[in-house]
Amino acid sequence: MTRPAPSLPTAEIAISQDLIDGYAAVSGDFNPVHVDRAFGAASAFGSTIAHGCLPMEPIFMALQRWLGVPALPPGSTMDLRYHRPSRPGDVIRLDAATPEADPGGGTRIPFACLNQAGEKVIEGVAVLPAAVG
Amino acid sequence: MTRPAPSLPTAEIAISQDLIDGYAAVSGDFNPVHVDRAFGAASAFGSTIAHGCLPMEPIFMALQRWLGVPALPPGSTMDLRYHRPSRPGDVIRLDAATPEADPGGGTRIPFACLNQAGEKVIEGVAVLPAAVG
Repeated sequence: MTRPAPSLPTAEIAISQDLIDGYAAVSGDFNPVHVDRAFGAASAFGSTIAHGCLPMEPIFMALQRWLGVPALPPGSTMDLRYHRPSRPGDVIRLDAATPEADPGGGTRIPFACLNQAGEKVIEGVAVLPAAVG
Repeated sequence: MTRPAPSLPTAEIAISQDLIDGYAAVSGDFNPVHVDRAFGAASAFGSTIAHGCLPMEPIFMALQRWLGVPALPPGSTMDLRYHRPSRPGDVIRLDAATPEADPGGGTRIPFACLNQAGEKVIEGVAVLPAAVG
């Protein structure tokens, strides 16, 4: 593995009803708030919403590309805070801080996944174990 | 919303190559370690591996069913540690502790997502905000 670049690459995911429907089929979670447009429109959300995994994709993608590996190394941690759902039409992009030394010996990367209005959808801190950061 | 039961419901996800291929199509992550059986077999993993989101599904599903809501409430947090990848043929099941009061006022639920050998794939703590736990 080559030494990672100073910063994570950019990463984003465009949320669409097709994407949500696809994830429903994969996960088996067909809750109508995800897949039924009329139900979603009448819900407190005002539209269908994406499953919680989908807006996490940008941080997974960026970390894996940055490290040049296909999966988070064992021992990686991720502390996440869910702020708001994401909806069809949203583009969720990663806003990652410059990786820094973690007191525990690894590499610490604070980040947020933002929607196109700049609102935090998910906020978190990833810590990669010492051997790989 | 009715008062939640004392414990989370059971939840599991059966990892298959079809499931992984489906998630690749949804996420756009077609890394050969996920979708190419020969590549996976020749890799350090010895097989294809699932994308990191998939073994998280049991905790998402169980929390949402427990609360009777379709998405984690805003302000929910999840601290995760990734221990090992999951593979086609694995059945990942939730092992959740009894929900307890969090010092911050919410509800704290330590959990692990285990494979069929009882090995931890993901370990974590979910904290639900005070208004919902």
